[in-house]
Amino acid sequence: MTEDAFDVVVVGSCMTDLVSQAPRLPKAGETIHGHKFFIGFGGKGANQCIQAARLGVKTAMICKVGKDFFGDNYIQNFKDNDVHTGFVRQTSEAATGAASITVNDAGENAIVIVAGANMLLGKDELQEVLPAIRKTKVLVCQLEINAQTSLQALQMARDNKVKTIFNPAPAVPDLDYNFYRVSDVFCCNESEAELLTGCPVNNVDEAHRAAQELLRRGCGAVIITLGPQGCVVLKAPESTSTHVPGTAVTAVDTTGAGDSFIGALAFYMANHSSMPLEEMARRANQVAAVSVQGVGTQTSFPFKRDLPAKLF
Amino acid sequence: MTEDAFDVVVVGSCMTDLVSQAPRLPKAGETIHGHKFFIGFGGKGANQCIQAARLGVKTAMICKVGKDFFGDNYIQNFKDNDVHTGFVRQTSEAATGAASITVNDAGENAIVIVAGANMLLGKDELQEVLPAIRKTKVLVCQLEINAQTSLQALQMARDNKVKTIFNPAPAVPDLDYNFYRVSDVFCCNESEAELLTGCPVNNVDEAHRAAQELLRRGCGAVIITLGPQGCVVLKAPESTSTHVPGTAVTAVDTTGAGDSFIGALAFYMANHSSMPLEEMARRANQVAAVSVQGVGTQTSFPFKRDLPAKLF
Repeated sequence: MTEDAFDVVVVGSCMTDLVSQAPRLPKAGETIHGHKFFIGFGGKGANQCIQAARLGVKTAMICKVGKDFFGDNYIQNFKDNDVHTGFVRQTSEAATGAASITVNDAGENAIVIVAGANMLLGKDELQEVLPAIRKTKVLVCQLEINAQTSLQALQMARDNKVKTIFNPAPAVPDLDYNFYRVSDVFCCNESEAELLTGCPVNNVDEAHRAAQELLRRGCGAVIITLGPQGCVVLKAPESTSTHVPGTAVTAVDTTGAGDSFIGALAFYMANHSSMPLEEMARRANQVAAVSVQGVGTQTSFPFKRDLPAKLF
Repeated sequence: MTEDAFDVVVVGSCMTDLVSQAPRLPKAGETIHGHKFFIGFGGKGANQCIQAARLGVKTAMICKVGKDFFGDNYIQNFKDNDVHTGFVRQTSEAATGAASITVNDAGENAIVIVAGANMLLGKDELQEVLPAIRKTKVLVCQLEINAQTSLQALQMARDNKVKTIFNPAPAVPDLDYNFYRVSDVFCCNESEAELLTGCPVNNVDEAHRAAQELLRRGCGAVIITLGPQGCVVLKAPESTSTHVPGTAVTAVDTTGAGDSFIGALAFYMANHSSMPLEEMARRANQVAAVSVQGVGTQTSFPFKRDLPAKLF
């Protein structure tokens, strides 16, 4: 166990993306021929951690992968991105999380996620890494691992005055209200906000209303991302949220843009803790706007060197 | 280049099977959660070669895989099955062939095949291995690689008096008639026979008629496999085919049963060359019947030690 202090610690998922590009999606009983196959690194937790690391903060990932090639490969990917891997556990009880993604020529995709080893990260592993959680500046969680593990990690961070970002993705309609209470920043996209509040979130006005409802449930602040429209930010005890407009760019591939935003937000919360949340969100939007101009998930996430100095 | 003589040489495909089991198949735009993910070895060419090897003949595989983990892994799989790998080429121009397979709880599957490196096996590689093709007893081809490469391999074998088995799978409706002329044994299943002849093949009588039509196109003999009903065998210059009944077994997983049959047939043609083709087919049926009683593709293919001595 390292005794170093980290800026950003992510407790979350790793997935190997197995991507097949085909003219169309196959029906039941069908075999079709695709034109390209490639393997990518994904998983919301790992994506967010790697984006934060690429902006230049000290990061660590707390996660579980299989004792298999994909697990070994993912650990190497963390190392290549300067993410600390001392808390990555390997299990022979399940395979590394895998996402089989078929993309048709219209750009639509059909995805089967098998979370595998991700679901085996539990409270014992969290207890082992408590010293690292205690000393980090920001802890980030999502919902691609066991929900109880995420909740416990956020609670441990809160108990130790560590700032928390919770990204309720993939969203569930009946989210445990304790998640709101342990979130300094509760950050979701429009469709997640819709599922959580039960109200439509198709524009900035509706996002304002959804943010108010989510804030009421007990979090410190709410950010609802709106793709090219930017995001709305609402902080307790304020009752009116701020719309932070997006940057106009030509999107090539929006996969992982939300994770790029959250990774960047974690960077700013760790490294520029006195910056207003609206300004952090504005800058995180700009980082994510760069990511949508490149193909792939982590492959499109910018490094500090790719970004204007005024963002730092 | 080895100067050894092989019993069975297969010029064909290698595929990494990426299997996700999920309650149902995802629609366009959907992400669903599956319960299990595993990686298997597949590809009709490799399957057939490995079944022949497991019955105890000297086999070699002529194929192309990617210079990647799946390619390395496949070469190791051949070694583990005593298949000669001196003619397996690796390329960095394409990935190892991959089949993304989603299986739903009803046992139906949807498959996307990306042939990748398989399609890059060409005439230059065949020229390099001509000495080995010349000296083998039986050469086997399918249609999961470039069709011209398959045709050329069969022609090279024919020119050197090597016995040929051609398995026109996956079937194409407009198969080049030269394939019939270079096939000592043209072996397909009922649905392939249907596509090739344009006539229904739902029972033994219809299979007899389809076999006559296929034989007329110029091959030395035709075998049409009929699953649990066995197969029909028709040899030139006869005009009446023989029905070889199947063995009654409880099938657990029929994936790869056709490849087990053809691998076994190649074994008998190499090792028992004077045996009547009907008897070879009867025994190959029994080998394939063992394979359907186990789960998976190559994992269910029997070894010589698993089979009754009377089959040898």
